[in-house]
Amino acid sequence: MEDIEIERVADPKLDAPTLVEGLPGVGHVGKLAADHLTSEFDAELVRRVYADEFPPQVGVDDGVASLACAELHAVDAGGVDLLVLSGDHQAGSSAGHYRLTDAFLDVAEAFDVKRTYALGGIPTGELIDDDDHGVVGAVTDAELCEKLEAAGVEFRENEPAGGIVGVSGLLLGLGGRRGMEAACLMGETSGYLVDPKSARAVLETLESLLGVAVDFSDLEDRAEEMEEVVGRIREMQEANAPVPDDDLRYIG
Amino acid sequence: MEDIEIERVADPKLDAPTLVEGLPGVGHVGKLAADHLTSEFDAELVRRVYADEFPPQVGVDDGVASLACAELHAVDAGGVDLLVLSGDHQAGSSAGHYRLTDAFLDVAEAFDVKRTYALGGIPTGELIDDDDHGVVGAVTDAELCEKLEAAGVEFRENEPAGGIVGVSGLLLGLGGRRGMEAACLMGETSGYLVDPKSARAVLETLESLLGVAVDFSDLEDRAEEMEEVVGRIREMQEANAPVPDDDLRYIG
Amino acid sequence: MEDIEIERVADPKLDAPTLVEGLPGVGHVGKLAADHLTSEFDAELVRRVYADEFPPQVGVDDGVASLACAELHAVDAGGVDLLVLSGDHQAGSSAGHYRLTDAFLDVAEAFDVKRTYALGGIPTGELIDDDDHGVVGAVTDAELCEKLEAAGVEFRENEPAGGIVGVSGLLLGLGGRRGMEAACLMGETSGYLVDPKSARAVLETLESLLGVAVDFSDLEDRAEEMEEVVGRIREMQEANAPVPDDDLRYIG
Amino acid sequence: MEDIEIERVADPKLDAPTLVEGLPGVGHVGKLAADHLTSEFDAELVRRVYADEFPPQVGVDDGVASLACAELHAVDAGGVDLLVLSGDHQAGSSAGHYRLTDAFLDVAEAFDVKRTYALGGIPTGELIDDDDHGVVGAVTDAELCEKLEAAGVEFRENEPAGGIVGVSGLLLGLGGRRGMEAACLMGETSGYLVDPKSARAVLETLESLLGVAVDFSDLEDRAEEMEEVVGRIREMQEANAPVPDDDLRYIG
Repeated sequence: MEDIEIERVADPKLDAPTLVEGLPGVGHVGKLAADHLTSEFDAELVRRVYADEFPPQVGVDDGVASLACAELHAVDAGGVDLLVLSGDHQAGSSAGHYRLTDAFLDVAEAFDVKRTYALGGIPTGELIDDDDHGVVGAVTDAELCEKLEAAGVEFRENEPAGGIVGVSGLLLGLGGRRGMEAACLMGETSGYLVDPKSARAVLETLESLLGVAVDFSDLEDRAEEMEEVVGRIREMQEANAPVPDDDLRYIG
Repeated sequence: MEDIEIERVADPKLDAPTLVEGLPGVGHVGKLAADHLTSEFDAELVRRVYADEFPPQVGVDDGVASLACAELHAVDAGGVDLLVLSGDHQAGSSAGHYRLTDAFLDVAEAFDVKRTYALGGIPTGELIDDDDHGVVGAVTDAELCEKLEAAGVEFRENEPAGGIVGVSGLLLGLGGRRGMEAACLMGETSGYLVDPKSARAVLETLESLLGVAVDFSDLEDRAEEMEEVVGRIREMQEANAPVPDDDLRYIG
Repeated sequence: MEDIEIERVADPKLDAPTLVEGLPGVGHVGKLAADHLTSEFDAELVRRVYADEFPPQVGVDDGVASLACAELHAVDAGGVDLLVLSGDHQAGSSAGHYRLTDAFLDVAEAFDVKRTYALGGIPTGELIDDDDHGVVGAVTDAELCEKLEAAGVEFRENEPAGGIVGVSGLLLGLGGRRGMEAACLMGETSGYLVDPKSARAVLETLESLLGVAVDFSDLEDRAEEMEEVVGRIREMQEANAPVPDDDLRYIG
Repeated sequence: MEDIEIERVADPKLDAPTLVEGLPGVGHVGKLAADHLTSEFDAELVRRVYADEFPPQVGVDDGVASLACAELHAVDAGGVDLLVLSGDHQAGSSAGHYRLTDAFLDVAEAFDVKRTYALGGIPTGELIDDDDHGVVGAVTDAELCEKLEAAGVEFRENEPAGGIVGVSGLLLGLGGRRGMEAACLMGETSGYLVDPKSARAVLETLESLLGVAVDFSDLEDRAEEMEEVVGRIREMQEANAPVPDDDLRYIG
């Protein structure tokens, strides 16, 4: 196998598609959001991306093994064409992140992608009240800010403090160097739990930006499950019991 | 030395051989099983595979040093030809695992291997009663399941939970992409101890699948030694003494 | 992206420029000093150096993302031409440090750099009294010592004990092998705190070596802020309270 | 810089030289022994080997920086020609160890080396009585054992238990694959302390094997310093005080 191999599964004609990325990260916000898009709308797998920087493993589904990869689906979001990038892994090294992101951008260019939205979470360090998940933005080009702000995206001084790490960050960094327009939409999330509510906040922003309508019922079910977990944590906090931080990290 | 070097030791004609892999892993189940095959049957070393991703070390046997490598033996299992892959090391990086597995598959193709069985263990987290080691399977192709189930292999939803890591997993992942048929046979094992009984369970499955008969007396001796260790652990557990987990890991 | 990419931003004619390097390191002394030079004097960005050994991330400034890189500015220090190398990252691997430093030296040679000063800190392990920050030197060529000693630089037996690690060290090591003259100027610093006073001590040495005059008012403001932190630490020490070492590491 | 660069410093004619390697390792036994040979006999630096797998650093001696490297000296041991390999570093990765050792073997072949002795320590886990440091051997070829046994080298079943790691091991592993004769001489040592006595035991074996005479007075001085340390440890042990294991590791 080469360092990176792009498997061509299908080549549908897409109309000025938008790349939407959601790989694993803070609160799994981006991954939840991207997976929700491929499951709610008509989605056709168009590319698998294999990389020797992914963990050396196969996933097993109904006994059938499949090699670690990232997937790109063509998604018809009610007449709006998306190219959705999702998967279970990030690269295992700095150089691997750069090479993978370049491969994703190559696919995006081959499909004539017009704009990229990288989805993710921004950690606040504390549990967040219902319906109060802000969405923080970052862009390749200051001219994009106005449109994003109109959709409710906030631009805050010195946030995210540590920059944006991983494929989401590099889609802006390397995409910007290629002259591609990209924005990162980061939903506020505690950082301790898988956060479907933050994923919904990010998707609602995307609804406004793309002019699409998303059905959130599945994501709401998921959110209710998490709410029970959050409820138990709040009880523990009020009882002054120490929160077992490690155990709760990314429950879900 | 190149990244990977395949040393050609012998080139016997093999009749539609089956590749059987057993490198170090959970409970050393796969390694015990593969080593048992090469010691019980007529075995001829055919290839050594060196890799700069193996630890930079030599083993010493009777004062004579030999460079870390994996070995492939042609094994005549009573008229059934096997190509048995064994060794003391896994690769030290993700990319190394991919490259090594590709090299193993190259050798397998050169010998016209018809099917691959990757042997390993699946951790249960607790000690297992005698003669109760199930064998869990994973395959490159759903059509293989029926034959395996007939041999007693179980396919369980969401198992193994974390997928299959290392060469065993990649033999399915990369082998499958080459169009090769492969299955992974994973014996249940506590995960705390070297487990000859789990290795026997895996080999009994292989007996049924390949139509061969294996003499298990050596493996039984090994199992009895381990049983004494397990007995001492059970006594400690019943006495409520804490199990010195670290010290017992892979005793054997 | 290639392993390393040098982006040519401007190509001013420089008169026998001196390369001054200040990347992150002990007490951030080198970085503070280099950043002070680019902010105090007329500075023109001439090169960005990207590397897949830098962390896979973007920094975000006013919402606009920029890919991790090191920057080289042409600085007019009152008639004396400097080429100032600064940035927020070191490489993530040994090989990456070597490759990056070679890239920096290539740029230096393209600008016909005559001498290199690598700026950094040398840890003393304890807080240092005001105005008592010695500057320790290391050179590519013993003939450089005399001039440096005349500017107050000290050469001490067995210091720095562990050698000089990172780009600063390799500018001497690899630069020396290219026949380039280079010196490292290391300001004494506790090693626990970002240390603007140590940066000033290093810059004062540079003033003397280059015959330039630097305005230190901004650095003094920064130093005063740090002095308050140091004051609180001293109080804690005198009260025999344990110093929360981890929390104080690189406050600033 | 290339991955590895071999700097040719001198090219004396050597008469059937023996390669003697002593890089850092267990008890620094090999390094002490090799450095003793270059300091006791006439030694001429013939090669420096630089590698981007060495730490990215310079050593500083009297203020002058020198890039991390390994050195090969031509040593005239009273009429017997040696090529002594020494240095302060091992490689930082598996692949780096393989590449470096290949480079060292290339130099050895260029000088027509007839035999290689890799020097090191073998850890016993406890302090060793005076003059009781056995020397354990390993060889590329069983035929070498007899000669070594005549010089007092012991070959023990299952020792060294974990094989031989690093350049010493690979000189046998990779040298053997090139058809070069090599032996590893490992002095018994506690593993806790720099051990000049173990280095002397190894060198005395070498005296017998090469027919040379070594003056040990400098090494004895070093040993006496260490003996004081050992004395203090024994007192602590007898007083049942816990030995501060970490602090004593490689004192010297």
